[in-house]
Amino acid sequence: MSRIYYEDFVVGAVRTCGPRVVTREEIIAFATEFDPQPMHLDEEAAQKTMLKGLSASGWHSCALMMRLIADGLALNSSSMGSPGVEEVKWVKPVRPGDVLTVRLTVLEKRESKSRPEMGLVRQRAEMLNQRGEVVLDSTYPGMFGKRPAGERP
Amino acid sequence: MSRIYYEDFVVGAVRTCGPRVVTREEIIAFATEFDPQPMHLDEEAAQKTMLKGLSASGWHSCALMMRLIADGLALNSSSMGSPGVEEVKWVKPVRPGDVLTVRLTVLEKRESKSRPEMGLVRQRAEMLNQRGEVVLDSTYPGMFGKRPAGERP
Repeated sequence: MSRIYYEDFVVGAVRTCGPRVVTREEIIAFATEFDPQPMHLDEEAAQKTMLKGLSASGWHSCALMMRLIADGLALNSSSMGSPGVEEVKWVKPVRPGDVLTVRLTVLEKRESKSRPEMGLVRQRAEMLNQRGEVVLDSTYPGMFGKRPAGERP
Repeated sequence: MSRIYYEDFVVGAVRTCGPRVVTREEIIAFATEFDPQPMHLDEEAAQKTMLKGLSASGWHSCALMMRLIADGLALNSSSMGSPGVEEVKWVKPVRPGDVLTVRLTVLEKRESKSRPEMGLVRQRAEMLNQRGEVVLDSTYPGMFGKRPAGERP
């Protein structure tokens, strides 16, 4: 499989990453370390919150999305990282046992003026559960190196 | 110490959370699980990237910020969570040994129309390192319950 370079991104193209299951143990372990609020730690306490049951920390959802994108795109590409994220919406709770996929849609791309060896690819990243519901909606600019001269597409 | 309710937020007020040290082991452990890209996993490989050395995954930075906010505000408040984040900028790399604090600034607040028992508090959350440099800049709306009738401020 050939590596994915800046040139290979097509505006409007859609890529799916995953699936991956998230377990109750993972949800509680992440929350214990990073986000020890009741709705992420304990089923009974979580029932009394707006989320009406145990759900993953929003930052855990983001981390899971990152892993799906790493395995489904970044690690097989010329990715040079990202300067940030434009927006993250935690649309629906992520529950124990959910089967997650990420849908990446290329929104736009442009060459970098200051760094001619790379370009910016703006993508929408939506994470979905096993019912096809969007649980996380985000948009981010990724930096990707251009194909080296002489390398075949 | 009395709990912090929606009524207690004052536009323009600043709160500091932390500090907390982030270690090399934590950076590599998070990256191994969620963001296994070379700049977050291995010092030698990281030297060859734009970040010029090992640095925390941007999502690890977000998770560390969340923990600082949980301990410094959310767990001692009527926080009901957040629907998302408006923007996250990873301004500077977070390095092993960095001492992190979070500066929260109240930007605006308003009562919820649909849920009279709560209000929304929009805050800017900046994470800083030991040199006072902003490493992460973000803005997010938080949902906070109002003070129950009869409870003294």
